[in-house]
Amino acid sequence: MNGAESLVRTLLAAGVDHCFTNPGTSEMHFVAALDGAAEMRSVLALQEGVATGAADGYWRMAGRPASTLLHLGPGLANGLSNLHNAKKAGSGVVNIVGEHATAHIALDAPLTADIEGIARPVSDWVRTTRAAADVGADAAAAVRAASGAAPVVATLILPGDAAWSEGGVVAAPEALEAPRAVPEAAVTAAAEALRKPGALLLLGPGALDEAALADAGRISAATGCGLMTEWSNARLARGAGIVAVARVPYPVDQAVEVLRPYRRIVLAGAKRPVAFFAYPDKPGVLTQPGTVFDELGSAGDDIAGALRALVEALGAGGAIPKGIAAAARPAIPEGAATPESIAAVLGATLPEGAVVVDEGVTTGRGFFGATAGAPPHHWLNNRGGSIGYGMPVAIGAAMAAPGRKVIALVGDGSAMYTPQALWTMAREGLDVTVLIFANRNYAILRGELTNVGVANPGPRALSMLSLDHPALEWTHLARGMGVEAERVETAPELAAAVKAGLASEGPYLVEVMI
Amino acid sequence: MNGAESLVRTLLAAGVDHCFTNPGTSEMHFVAALDGAAEMRSVLALQEGVATGAADGYWRMAGRPASTLLHLGPGLANGLSNLHNAKKAGSGVVNIVGEHATAHIALDAPLTADIEGIARPVSDWVRTTRAAADVGADAAAAVRAASGAAPVVATLILPGDAAWSEGGVVAAPEALEAPRAVPEAAVTAAAEALRKPGALLLLGPGALDEAALADAGRISAATGCGLMTEWSNARLARGAGIVAVARVPYPVDQAVEVLRPYRRIVLAGAKRPVAFFAYPDKPGVLTQPGTVFDELGSAGDDIAGALRALVEALGAGGAIPKGIAAAARPAIPEGAATPESIAAVLGATLPEGAVVVDEGVTTGRGFFGATAGAPPHHWLNNRGGSIGYGMPVAIGAAMAAPGRKVIALVGDGSAMYTPQALWTMAREGLDVTVLIFANRNYAILRGELTNVGVANPGPRALSMLSLDHPALEWTHLARGMGVEAERVETAPELAAAVKAGLASEGPYLVEVMI
Repeated sequence: MNGAESLVRTLLAAGVDHCFTNPGTSEMHFVAALDGAAEMRSVLALQEGVATGAADGYWRMAGRPASTLLHLGPGLANGLSNLHNAKKAGSGVVNIVGEHATAHIALDAPLTADIEGIARPVSDWVRTTRAAADVGADAAAAVRAASGAAPVVATLILPGDAAWSEGGVVAAPEALEAPRAVPEAAVTAAAEALRKPGALLLLGPGALDEAALADAGRISAATGCGLMTEWSNARLARGAGIVAVARVPYPVDQAVEVLRPYRRIVLAGAKRPVAFFAYPDKPGVLTQPGTVFDELGSAGDDIAGALRALVEALGAGGAIPKGIAAAARPAIPEGAATPESIAAVLGATLPEGAVVVDEGVTTGRGFFGATAGAPPHHWLNNRGGSIGYGMPVAIGAAMAAPGRKVIALVGDGSAMYTPQALWTMAREGLDVTVLIFANRNYAILRGELTNVGVANPGPRALSMLSLDHPALEWTHLARGMGVEAERVETAPELAAAVKAGLASEGPYLVEVMI
Repeated sequence: MNGAESLVRTLLAAGVDHCFTNPGTSEMHFVAALDGAAEMRSVLALQEGVATGAADGYWRMAGRPASTLLHLGPGLANGLSNLHNAKKAGSGVVNIVGEHATAHIALDAPLTADIEGIARPVSDWVRTTRAAADVGADAAAAVRAASGAAPVVATLILPGDAAWSEGGVVAAPEALEAPRAVPEAAVTAAAEALRKPGALLLLGPGALDEAALADAGRISAATGCGLMTEWSNARLARGAGIVAVARVPYPVDQAVEVLRPYRRIVLAGAKRPVAFFAYPDKPGVLTQPGTVFDELGSAGDDIAGALRALVEALGAGGAIPKGIAAAARPAIPEGAATPESIAAVLGATLPEGAVVVDEGVTTGRGFFGATAGAPPHHWLNNRGGSIGYGMPVAIGAAMAAPGRKVIALVGDGSAMYTPQALWTMAREGLDVTVLIFANRNYAILRGELTNVGVANPGPRALSMLSLDHPALEWTHLARGMGVEAERVETAPELAAAVKAGLASEGPYLVEVMI
């Protein structure tokens, strides 16, 4: 058995059975090993950002890692920004990168690069395998790092000779790290804090599934505390019957206003609220000076268990959770597609079990209200802020959740970062409905010019934010990659198109002119 | 004057007047500063790989750097692989990356990343500016690093507060590094080596313009030595009246055969020939054991001057250069488009002064023979091996060489890495004719499977190399980004399409079915 074969078999033994890849010469032995492993679903991406984003989306819905297989330093570099997003989302990824054979590295061939150096900024675990005999054990260690309670992006670098040499050994799966129990003292302190006036329970990773949200609702019912989530959630349960929680708003001024009443904040997996960006005359910290924070738990902790313990400490086990969303669907409005009417169309059409991948940027900021009463669904946000995340994440989510409808909401500027994702959706026949919000602008940046103090931007500045010359034609782009597509201008047209997309089994793209 | 304004003015004072960018919030002050600087041509790219590749192409044709302007760590990451290519090509780039305001970095906002860490693997010069007062001086130092005899990718990281704070100071241009004269002893040693039987003069950067090639031809005429260039040349002068030099072939076996006669090799700017990739049973070093190398000069040395001195040392000033290409254009063949007939069409149609950006991968390996007698032109290869280079480099080349016809030759797999380049070509009205070689395969990798010893790849392995399901439709993709396009299947159709593309003033895409 060569090293590449031991890698594939070790991954499969550990339950890693999806590989998002764009391989090259240095990975050909791995590709060959796939022939002997029908259980490994190999998914080709035409640019590595698609592969790494798909691995992120896969983790979010499957709760276990997929692998990538990338070609040397440049292949890794192309996938780096979606690995950044995965890291910030707390998604585990077994990120496999081919390397030249050990003796070849010193020759400084054209593709030679510092792969470990490129990997480190986005990987909390990096290892270069030394020999074929080590590949299996290194792969098992990478899977462990990318799994369990505090998963990371684990980059395993595989030199060609380690892949092609005989002597591979399949390694058994390593035991995974279990979530750490939150100490009783932290629970007691949180209970005390939340009973005080002006208290907020801020929910983050680990507190966002239906049961944890219900416990948060009970805590709120018992104490009167506020409930909120961070602006971006890796995966939030929502819909009728589920406790609906508002997000800390994105705009700094709004966020400061919303948080102003709270002087005592219990962090349940969440981080202290800070601004996405710095501005000359706005605060970076969104809370008021003197706010007291209690940390109920952070990454690796059993946050859901801590919320359960908190319910018990408060004697709130019998309480009816506060904030449960009632079943309600808005009517489909007449008229043009606007952020508000798009929200209503989503609320009217979201099917039960939908997975919404939200990269709506400006258009999508207000979608929560109109969709809160739709049937239960999951909502996935970008926690890393690097655009080009939406369509790749939708690929991984669709593969991890077969039978569920995936809806990707993507601004046109963001979608142009990783348009190649459409091809992979078509190739794999993935049930994804993509809504492209075509405002033909980097709309978010128009506001940001004002925020940074530029009162009257001139034509040269504005032209750097504009996508309208030439106009991007998404129906052409989609058809160029084998994806059925249509363009809509009104809310009723959008509703019909979304229904058509949901009814079709493969991908379907709707260009929404706004 | 704020820091951003001092940056723009310092760049302009140093002759840097093109900026390839995709800015974000943290770069909005730079965008605002552009309004006051009509001399700076700002070019928007929809993905940063387009911006960095364009900067590479600009340097190759202008011989001076352009700047980029990228958004934080992820924006830099997206541009990293074409910076890798630029680094390997020896192209100077003033690579400007925005950073959060200094106080914001510690807050660990979503987009916070180790920007210096991401930059270092591709940048031989990295600096983070501390304050507005330093921006001008740091920019001048970056321009110096990216200019002169041994230019590098110089990454200047600009925190938001350094950009927006008052106190910017425009810095005067720094003196550039002049090429180092090659010592007389090296010239004498080279002359002695080249007079021996079995000697080869291997030409690299600095030895590839028309005059240097003529001197190389004189040296060959006087000594009988062989002449060759490396496989990839950043910019090679070619065509009727210019000394035509073969390249060391890409396939290892062919390269070893071609180099086998030579036991004494003089390196004029070139590196010792090594294989692109390692293979289990092939050598990584392409020359025979015991081959003696003489280094006439390397990066930063005056290679052209050394060749001139060598001509004089050999008394070959009056010699007629060996290998001057005679004017000759092949006939346009009948029949299907094949690598051979495409080569003939190029030879028949290349206009004088054309700039050929070659990312033909498999299809383009044999284009040199049929084009050697076309009117004088330049030929640009990828020296870093990271695909997605061709169309972005064509953008920069077209902007640096207005009035010249740019022809980009790109495999379909490569073109899908940076398709966004088409939009920038349309927006800027660039005179680029793009030929997409649509074999709907990563054709190079089919051969590589065999090279690494996989005799009978199965369907799962082969499917990782195939782009035919769904078929990519380049005419749709081009129209989706505002570029006129047509599809051809035969050599005469291709010839007509190339002529149409050359006659049009904006970009024109030809999908060549092969």
